[in-house]
Amino acid sequence: MTQFLEESKKISREISTLSGEVKNKVLNEMADALMDHCDFIVSCNAKDMSEGKLNNLSDALLDRLYLDGDRVKGMADAIREIATLKEPVGRTLDGWVTENGLNIQKVSIPIGVIGIIYESRPNVTSDTAALCFKSGNVCVLKGGKEAEHSNNAIANVLRHVLAKNKLPEQAIALLPDSSREGVANLIKQDKYVDLIVPRGGAALIKYVSENATVPVVKHDKGLCHIYIDKDANHKKAIQIAINAKVQRPGVCNAMETLLVHKEVAAYILPPLYEAFIAAGTELKGCEVTREYIEIDCATHEDYDTEYLANILNIKVVKNVEEAILHIGKYGSGHSEAIISENYSIVNKFLNEVDAACVYANASTRFTDGGAFGLGAEVGISTNKLHSRGPMGINDLTTFKYKIYGQGQIR
Amino acid sequence: MTQFLEESKKISREISTLSGEVKNKVLNEMADALMDHCDFIVSCNAKDMSEGKLNNLSDALLDRLYLDGDRVKGMADAIREIATLKEPVGRTLDGWVTENGLNIQKVSIPIGVIGIIYESRPNVTSDTAALCFKSGNVCVLKGGKEAEHSNNAIANVLRHVLAKNKLPEQAIALLPDSSREGVANLIKQDKYVDLIVPRGGAALIKYVSENATVPVVKHDKGLCHIYIDKDANHKKAIQIAINAKVQRPGVCNAMETLLVHKEVAAYILPPLYEAFIAAGTELKGCEVTREYIEIDCATHEDYDTEYLANILNIKVVKNVEEAILHIGKYGSGHSEAIISENYSIVNKFLNEVDAACVYANASTRFTDGGAFGLGAEVGISTNKLHSRGPMGINDLTTFKYKIYGQGQIR
Repeated sequence: MTQFLEESKKISREISTLSGEVKNKVLNEMADALMDHCDFIVSCNAKDMSEGKLNNLSDALLDRLYLDGDRVKGMADAIREIATLKEPVGRTLDGWVTENGLNIQKVSIPIGVIGIIYESRPNVTSDTAALCFKSGNVCVLKGGKEAEHSNNAIANVLRHVLAKNKLPEQAIALLPDSSREGVANLIKQDKYVDLIVPRGGAALIKYVSENATVPVVKHDKGLCHIYIDKDANHKKAIQIAINAKVQRPGVCNAMETLLVHKEVAAYILPPLYEAFIAAGTELKGCEVTREYIEIDCATHEDYDTEYLANILNIKVVKNVEEAILHIGKYGSGHSEAIISENYSIVNKFLNEVDAACVYANASTRFTDGGAFGLGAEVGISTNKLHSRGPMGINDLTTFKYKIYGQGQIR
Repeated sequence: MTQFLEESKKISREISTLSGEVKNKVLNEMADALMDHCDFIVSCNAKDMSEGKLNNLSDALLDRLYLDGDRVKGMADAIREIATLKEPVGRTLDGWVTENGLNIQKVSIPIGVIGIIYESRPNVTSDTAALCFKSGNVCVLKGGKEAEHSNNAIANVLRHVLAKNKLPEQAIALLPDSSREGVANLIKQDKYVDLIVPRGGAALIKYVSENATVPVVKHDKGLCHIYIDKDANHKKAIQIAINAKVQRPGVCNAMETLLVHKEVAAYILPPLYEAFIAAGTELKGCEVTREYIEIDCATHEDYDTEYLANILNIKVVKNVEEAILHIGKYGSGHSEAIISENYSIVNKFLNEVDAACVYANASTRFTDGGAFGLGAEVGISTNKLHSRGPMGINDLTTFKYKIYGQGQIR
């Protein structure tokens, strides 16, 4: 494995200097190749599907795993879209001339070798491989065991295009040892690997965070709140609350707990109750909430749970300070929203809540690379440093200082 | 300790929202207070000095530890300079309106709670405390045992100013348990600590990198090279090489190995030899180098050593590619320079060498916050992510997205 990663590191120097023109040409050929080998990919996926059924994977997991012609076309289209993104390498981020005439330029460069650990969805293989290639990085992919045949097929199609273009195939690699030991080894190879991106369940994130010596950009849970202030527009408040919980409950930017100012609880809880019940939401609430609407009791554990399901906690709070404290205690720093027309309260909330994305009068569901207008995303980072929130292609770059002198010494 | 850090986290919310005006007023009062308590600080330092002598600290270490009126004034002046820096919090880093009318602003914010682990120099206590305060962060400082009395005295003077301004004293804290176990505990408290900055010897950096679950910005070694190309201006080349090695050999941006293109070796090695011998430099060289000048043999271990002393390896290389490969093998990603008037070679070097700072025709000694014009620095980061190279005050901030809507849902 060490030898393999040493080679990855070496290759990363070659890939890092490819021109945007070459990279985009190769990406479009990759999209073509996925379409040309669609039947092959679907037939490999069928093996994963039948093994998955034998292993009693849930219907939800099987749906995420499944590929057909349409889904392969979706993967190809995503690569074509990545090819159209603005070149992320070589951007001048800052520049100045010092008093003694040094011309300093802060320029974006690829990160180097990126290890990505993920589960289920085979499209992550092509999406992340394309994003890493476009940003001049070498990727080492570790997909889930359940998608092994699909991931191998997709990676091989992409690698074949690299070879045809006389580029090193290992620029897009699957981790050679995909066992638990393989992952344990990968995340400690800080000499050769520059970044690990774990996408998956809490146990995986925790394991990687605690054991990696390579820097990690986590894609951890989203335990998101919406606070309905005393000065909220009730119609907006109800629409946003319903949207944030119900439109797609299984995603990280869905709301888990609704906080309501005590002065409006009597007016807004009954219509909220009706709307949520109509949407099939299971409601739990604090003691004060339960004075207004008949729902189950919410416990400390409930406030601490990312349901990923159509279940919601409701809590009545005294004021914005109590809302901020509750979010500080239970929030995961992902996405938090306030509904209020009072912009001194809004700004207090946006300033004091510590999260990647803080919203005024909009649904938390917008935390997403596409919705942000960043294009394809690696995921939603819950790191506080390097990348925070939707992780777009620019977050797959770092920088160096290029300094042009004329013989300066100190 | 957990309770202490939980309190630090809580305080960080209050400190993060202080206005620039308040912070600068407090910083100037801190500078005044250091001057007012100069005698007290110097007398506490005297205890460290006499204990240091009893413990047989080296003269170099004792010099770094020593404080007198002038050095305390230097600390006060540094704080006044930090007060004049542009406000690092609340900068709009990016901003746009999405198609559906969401106004997205990427805004700089404090990181939160920062643990800084360092050695010897007591001025690091006041510098880093002031930089963290100015950037709205709470700091937890862990200085060296040898400077304990000095660090306590300085921190207490600064904390007293916080209290006088009705701010929580714990915003500037010394780690309550300064034992090895205390450090081990600190670097795993990712729930309360947002960043660890270790500044010190290789063993400390390695220990922290391998054991921390909190993100780390390392200040690791500088193993820097200068490559004299075939098309170098010889006068510039000799001046820069001498400056990079001799002017201050004990620092991380000094040169350790000089690479020379084979076609100019015969002309440039003899005058380089004379200049270095005149400057008292101990020289080691590869076999080819030793055909031109009479010096000791350089081994693999020599190329891999950060001397921090007036010792230099010289190696003759075939071309810029071999220079880049040598740097890729032995460099620490800190500062690397090429001397050449051929800008297609220069650009190849600047693009392909992976280091925080890559120089054309200037000394590596300029890698420094002050020389870069960034003002006071936390140190020189050898991280590749978040902060790279001179770590100025803006690197003590991260960001959040503030999103203003008018009721948008998905």
